[in-house]
Amino acid sequence: MKSQVVTFLIKCPDQKGLVAKITNFFFERGFNILSCQQYVNSIEDMYFMRIRLNADGTNISKEELEESFLKLAEPLQFDWFVNYGDSKQNVAIMVSHTSHNLYDLLERYKEGSLACNVKMVISNHNKLRHIADMFDVPFYHLPVTKETKQEQEAQVKQLLDTNKVDLVIMARYMQILSSDFINHYPERIINIHHSFLPAFQGANPYKKAYERGVKLIGATAHYATEDLDEGPIIEQDVKPVTHESTPTTLKRIGADIEKLVLASAVKCHLNNQIIVSGNRAIVFPEAGE
Amino acid sequence: MKSQVVTFLIKCPDQKGLVAKITNFFFERGFNILSCQQYVNSIEDMYFMRIRLNADGTNISKEELEESFLKLAEPLQFDWFVNYGDSKQNVAIMVSHTSHNLYDLLERYKEGSLACNVKMVISNHNKLRHIADMFDVPFYHLPVTKETKQEQEAQVKQLLDTNKVDLVIMARYMQILSSDFINHYPERIINIHHSFLPAFQGANPYKKAYERGVKLIGATAHYATEDLDEGPIIEQDVKPVTHESTPTTLKRIGADIEKLVLASAVKCHLNNQIIVSGNRAIVFPEAGE
Amino acid sequence: MKSQVVTFLIKCPDQKGLVAKITNFFFERGFNILSCQQYVNSIEDMYFMRIRLNADGTNISKEELEESFLKLAEPLQFDWFVNYGDSKQNVAIMVSHTSHNLYDLLERYKEGSLACNVKMVISNHNKLRHIADMFDVPFYHLPVTKETKQEQEAQVKQLLDTNKVDLVIMARYMQILSSDFINHYPERIINIHHSFLPAFQGANPYKKAYERGVKLIGATAHYATEDLDEGPIIEQDVKPVTHESTPTTLKRIGADIEKLVLASAVKCHLNNQIIVSGNRAIVFPEAGE
Amino acid sequence: MKSQVVTFLIKCPDQKGLVAKITNFFFERGFNILSCQQYVNSIEDMYFMRIRLNADGTNISKEELEESFLKLAEPLQFDWFVNYGDSKQNVAIMVSHTSHNLYDLLERYKEGSLACNVKMVISNHNKLRHIADMFDVPFYHLPVTKETKQEQEAQVKQLLDTNKVDLVIMARYMQILSSDFINHYPERIINIHHSFLPAFQGANPYKKAYERGVKLIGATAHYATEDLDEGPIIEQDVKPVTHESTPTTLKRIGADIEKLVLASAVKCHLNNQIIVSGNRAIVFPEAGE
Repeated sequence: MKSQVVTFLIKCPDQKGLVAKITNFFFERGFNILSCQQYVNSIEDMYFMRIRLNADGTNISKEELEESFLKLAEPLQFDWFVNYGDSKQNVAIMVSHTSHNLYDLLERYKEGSLACNVKMVISNHNKLRHIADMFDVPFYHLPVTKETKQEQEAQVKQLLDTNKVDLVIMARYMQILSSDFINHYPERIINIHHSFLPAFQGANPYKKAYERGVKLIGATAHYATEDLDEGPIIEQDVKPVTHESTPTTLKRIGADIEKLVLASAVKCHLNNQIIVSGNRAIVFPEAGE
Repeated sequence: MKSQVVTFLIKCPDQKGLVAKITNFFFERGFNILSCQQYVNSIEDMYFMRIRLNADGTNISKEELEESFLKLAEPLQFDWFVNYGDSKQNVAIMVSHTSHNLYDLLERYKEGSLACNVKMVISNHNKLRHIADMFDVPFYHLPVTKETKQEQEAQVKQLLDTNKVDLVIMARYMQILSSDFINHYPERIINIHHSFLPAFQGANPYKKAYERGVKLIGATAHYATEDLDEGPIIEQDVKPVTHESTPTTLKRIGADIEKLVLASAVKCHLNNQIIVSGNRAIVFPEAGE
Repeated sequence: MKSQVVTFLIKCPDQKGLVAKITNFFFERGFNILSCQQYVNSIEDMYFMRIRLNADGTNISKEELEESFLKLAEPLQFDWFVNYGDSKQNVAIMVSHTSHNLYDLLERYKEGSLACNVKMVISNHNKLRHIADMFDVPFYHLPVTKETKQEQEAQVKQLLDTNKVDLVIMARYMQILSSDFINHYPERIINIHHSFLPAFQGANPYKKAYERGVKLIGATAHYATEDLDEGPIIEQDVKPVTHESTPTTLKRIGADIEKLVLASAVKCHLNNQIIVSGNRAIVFPEAGE
Repeated sequence: MKSQVVTFLIKCPDQKGLVAKITNFFFERGFNILSCQQYVNSIEDMYFMRIRLNADGTNISKEELEESFLKLAEPLQFDWFVNYGDSKQNVAIMVSHTSHNLYDLLERYKEGSLACNVKMVISNHNKLRHIADMFDVPFYHLPVTKETKQEQEAQVKQLLDTNKVDLVIMARYMQILSSDFINHYPERIINIHHSFLPAFQGANPYKKAYERGVKLIGATAHYATEDLDEGPIIEQDVKPVTHESTPTTLKRIGADIEKLVLASAVKCHLNNQIIVSGNRAIVFPEAGE
């Protein structure tokens, strides 16, 4: 391995000596530890680590590394993942009518602040095609009705799999995906919901927020799971509002929150900062990155 | 009337000329308008005004003022309220085991930043008596069981009414009050709920917040209504949290939010900044006060 | 006048009866008052009003309205401004190398959430031309050196004046404009500074913020005045940061704050929500708009 | 050592193998690592670690531990500190006229949420004596004039040293302490400044904030150093304000920020979360504590 940043994500039952054993393992193989972040969940007796390594000066191959790591991992019951930082993830963005999240993601992608390849935009409508065009990203219009849902999802799946898409971003895609579809991409679909979940689940959160007279509105980015709006929360934010705000104003104020929350969640995912544990997402902060 | 600030709160169907008519009324009677805040709800076609007057130099009596105001108010279908700023409201604080909100309210009262008379602290436990003692506020211990609930509420009611209490603050009083009790004090009971409602209604919100893995926790101050945790929201705030937070940490972080949110809501109420409209609270900001 | 929203901004010495006199004036001429916001600065004894009128059903012409308003305005020493809501303002955006604010403004313009005509992008570099091209907005490259500064400013001025530009947005234009230039467009140039002013005035605020070890970074949108970074503040926001943040990370985190703060300030200006008083900007909130 | 939490804070030049070496050291001696937090400052090539250990089941004495740790520390040039969690720190609070921070700290102390012994309150005025009395904390009135400054500081120093005070909290003590005094308690004096430093250094920050027309006000807790308001920042926060706020309102809004910011900084200090590096404070977040 050359000068590249290797990231390991590890989840296992808590036990004495884990940090020492893991850091030793990498130290002995010549890696420089750039950062080493841990989380101990003492309620569930679980241990989580995100460790970033500089491979400079090591001669070990990926295969050798993984083979020897397995010998450490198995007795300690590691659930683990490694990213070698040598290729960008492939991303697909799914949208319907709403443009603000799409603009924002494509602009960040174009500016180089989202480290990925946006392979395509998929939509059940044709309305946002011009935006994909502006940014030279392929746009696929795959309309859907109740009757054609299964068929359309199959088309989407084929597009994603043919293009080796690693991450699907539902940037206000206003369709409920089937369990089959979602389970095909576990922890690989990020959805933005336009409320501070678990408040106002389901449709029309801004209308509900107006009617309830809340003094804050928010947005939530989470991994999609079978239970709608119930997946592990990656990022949330809110802004203060007043009685003056109509559902329309709330929608406008909300759009800015949605943009930042979704972009931040996507960055955390692409940057290997997240370990999912049950219905909770462990999101490690950036470590001088 | 002498040098005092008179505040009118007005709610009525929206119609042309309201500001002009109302401000003229007060101008013609020699009042100086200190501030005049309005809100038009165009969804429900309703009009709301908070107007603060300086009575300096007027000779009109309260009776004359109200009599002539009625002639304006009736044809325009005003629902109105007036406060003459010449006496402080009487307040009772109800608590159970949790001390932080009680300390905070009494400290603000003592420092003069809550313009009211705290007449008493009422609790179903004896645990916080020493705090009331520290601040020289009478403490009433009225234990309650399922069997004695009706009787205890009657005792509370008598205490409140004998002492002419204008506002009841439920500062973590962990009992559900009967509809009878609540309806006896309409828009005069403020409750603090330890989550950003409508998320995590009911008991143990911090435990639920931990389990749901939210990235923000909050608190909500609202008027108590028959439907628990469903009353008009006066004030809300949140703080960011991470996966590191246990239910215990969330509770501690939450305590600071609860203190500020409850104190702020109480101040808005005492300062006549709130008009309730259905399930929504119109909370006018301070106007150079 | 047809169905349009007319906005008056008024500034004058405080005195009794102002609201009544002004609202009467409009009521008598058949206007419906949509909102009426006031601010009394009792330290300087000044009065400020923003009043929005629906002209539906009135027959009065602009000339008649202004002529009769003058009769009210003169004795009361009004400094006033009226916008008839019948045409969009012309806007020019000035940039250098940094793209995030430009993308964000153009996207909002394209989406229809900035009510203006973006007539042009002007830059001292050619680097961001492709972005203007993407959004079909004319791009003018006007390089500048110490020697050519006066000449270049003259070119800019001519471009702006020929195109009847109402508002200049300095979206990270990294040149100091001459007093002459700035005074030619009083309260019509909005600048974004990448710190919470007055902290870290001048160049390299993120580097300074890192060195000072602050735990919050921010951005400030203000009207440009002769004294650099000293003009009336329209909008500010901050985000929490930690010791982990390098100047580079601060820059990235700051970019999101800058985008929202600048867009919000521009919206307030275009929406006639601002009255400048000395070095302070009175920014009225939206009133159900 | 019995069941207690031992915390090491380490600062040293960055080099390969640090985590492995340090965690091995503790693992080999039978400690369970509760949390291990690191920060690498790659600009200055410095390494920082906060490591919390459970001493359960170890038989090593403090002396043995420190002696063997020295053998690790010296060649690696550690600047280190250890806290055995077996005794609470002694704290003195210094105040002048302003009560809100004093109330807040004493309430948290009384409630058990500040793990320390508040040994005394020292003031140059007698005004807040009743608050110390309420909470049964000794109060020392040590008036000061220009002439008696040196003498008074000597008295304060004697009080602090006789009572083995570990931490001095300047909770709005409105006197400038001499360099001599400050250098006697390095990184052991925490001050609260009522602005978001470095904005509005020096006196009357709320008046300056009003005059500058800022849209946010804040507070900063920092270690006191010779250069007034220039010490390492531990915690900062802000709240939005509007043009409506007078210097008096800003003061009131600011009081709540000051309370939370100071209490949080004190908690971080008492909990051994801070390593100072030059003029920057590395503040590690709580790790499931």
